[in-house]
Amino acid sequence: LLATTGERLLLGVDLGGSAVKYGLITSEGAIVDHGKIPTLVERGPEDILHRIACALDELLARDGRRRTDILAVGFGSPGPLSTQRGVVIDTPNLQWKDVPVQATLEQDLGLPLVLHNDANAAAYGEFWKGAGREAQIMVLYTLGTGVGGGICLNNDLLVGPGENAGELGHMVLDPHGPQCPCGHFGCLEAFSAAKAIVRDMLIAIASGEETSLKAVDQAAITAKRIFEAARDGDAVARRLFHRAGWCLGLASGNLVNVLNAEMFVFGGAMSGAWEILHPAILEGARASAMAMPFEEIKFVRAELGENAGMIGAAGLALRAYGS
Amino acid sequence: LLATTGERLLLGVDLGGSAVKYGLITSEGAIVDHGKIPTLVERGPEDILHRIACALDELLARDGRRRTDILAVGFGSPGPLSTQRGVVIDTPNLQWKDVPVQATLEQDLGLPLVLHNDANAAAYGEFWKGAGREAQIMVLYTLGTGVGGGICLNNDLLVGPGENAGELGHMVLDPHGPQCPCGHFGCLEAFSAAKAIVRDMLIAIASGEETSLKAVDQAAITAKRIFEAARDGDAVARRLFHRAGWCLGLASGNLVNVLNAEMFVFGGAMSGAWEILHPAILEGARASAMAMPFEEIKFVRAELGENAGMIGAAGLALRAYGS
Repeated sequence: LLATTGERLLLGVDLGGSAVKYGLITSEGAIVDHGKIPTLVERGPEDILHRIACALDELLARDGRRRTDILAVGFGSPGPLSTQRGVVIDTPNLQWKDVPVQATLEQDLGLPLVLHNDANAAAYGEFWKGAGREAQIMVLYTLGTGVGGGICLNNDLLVGPGENAGELGHMVLDPHGPQCPCGHFGCLEAFSAAKAIVRDMLIAIASGEETSLKAVDQAAITAKRIFEAARDGDAVARRLFHRAGWCLGLASGNLVNVLNAEMFVFGGAMSGAWEILHPAILEGARASAMAMPFEEIKFVRAELGENAGMIGAAGLALRAYGS
Repeated sequence: LLATTGERLLLGVDLGGSAVKYGLITSEGAIVDHGKIPTLVERGPEDILHRIACALDELLARDGRRRTDILAVGFGSPGPLSTQRGVVIDTPNLQWKDVPVQATLEQDLGLPLVLHNDANAAAYGEFWKGAGREAQIMVLYTLGTGVGGGICLNNDLLVGPGENAGELGHMVLDPHGPQCPCGHFGCLEAFSAAKAIVRDMLIAIASGEETSLKAVDQAAITAKRIFEAARDGDAVARRLFHRAGWCLGLASGNLVNVLNAEMFVFGGAMSGAWEILHPAILEGARASAMAMPFEEIKFVRAELGENAGMIGAAGLALRAYGS
């Protein structure tokens, strides 16, 4: 295992609000080994970056690898951030401001690093090795507290001149719709994020609608709990998940018309509600898609699960530093 | 002029419902000579294509050129069409069905030809030699009876796997909005096309709203007439043009978020209403754009006017057949 082909390996890091996932990845996208450490946001960025460097060193040691076996490190982080400058500009989740991730870790590790938005890294992962690997144009939605995403086309990740492409949750679908945390009205995220579903369930309860959750403590009303109620036939819960899926479909159909995107991949915790979301996604997409035959458009669940970001980050390191 | 550098030239053709524009174009995008013939839709596709071949031959003869001076022909046509197959599949305007434009004209002219959607050709023209030449990602809207468009990124036209990318008029902006000719509800085109403005002016008159156009014969109420009324201060006319611009801005802001598109170019007859459209476009874009600093986004008029399609088609011929 030590003296093999001399193939250079990659390190992929996926920085999340509660945990950092990292892995040793081949240039074919296979996971050789991987690990996870808690983020411990309260300790601040220097501490987190230092512990990530140590964890990567330990991973290499555990597998009998040297730093010279590694081509580069890919690092996925919540944004906004700048890949060009290697800096995380601002993350509400982590409360980081202008953190020079690339410079810090390149110095600590002695390896080249590329920094990307976490949702973009996940999109690249699914495009490279997951559900989107057959697609010409793939759109990934990451469904969680918010709605993020990424777009791959021309066999590459679309980063955009502002380094911030793929803000799919902020396509306005109805300017008369509810306000989004971004301040605008009627963004996809304001309909389809976990937060939006919880918000509207609380509104429904407050306005006296008949739902099995009306007796439940407000703090216990999560998107997961609402999904379970929907699965048990609760009409309000079903309506909210249906709308979430319908809006995801409508947004997808818009991207069929604009880009001819032909594969839509849904990942993130809320994609677990697939049995309710999927038919609603199809229905919503039929209300907008017209630039391609509908049967040629694919709507599928992500395949790489929580490894998508780590694998994608490694792929982006290969893209940046591979020959 | 005859015995110059030996540079190969291009022919660009822009097929429209009433006229065919064509030109002899250098590989730098400069017009050497150009002409125009009536389309005469009623005579059918064979007649039109034959007259185009004759017109191109005459153009060459007039300029003392031979066919061997020409690298290739670019042909812009209303769609849907297939560039790969060289076939116009269906055009409501021209009433063409499965017309093999590429095979027919390649045989007649003895020159290679590439067929593209007319709005895509215009987009490529503006990107290559017009308002978008500084942009990394440029979106062109063609504002006329309907709303068409095209997207250029990665220094290329985005065609898409369905060969039908850039259907910008069919981004749904409000599923509760008016019905679009495509059958869906609340498409951009259903708010911002000339047809939509005329439709809603007639509705406003029928419902007794106070407008200077209420005494005008219905058949004389065109978008141009409504624009003149708006310029003269008519409140209903102003409201309709404001909404048209606002929706164009909202759609543009969505593309800022999805693609980081940073330049939006507005062409077509209705872009003549720029003085009213432009401020409304900015206002609409502010209601959706959030993925780039607003001041970095450009909203401009097209520069090539009615030559955009012809120049762009020539550019696409160079793209397809240039070394």
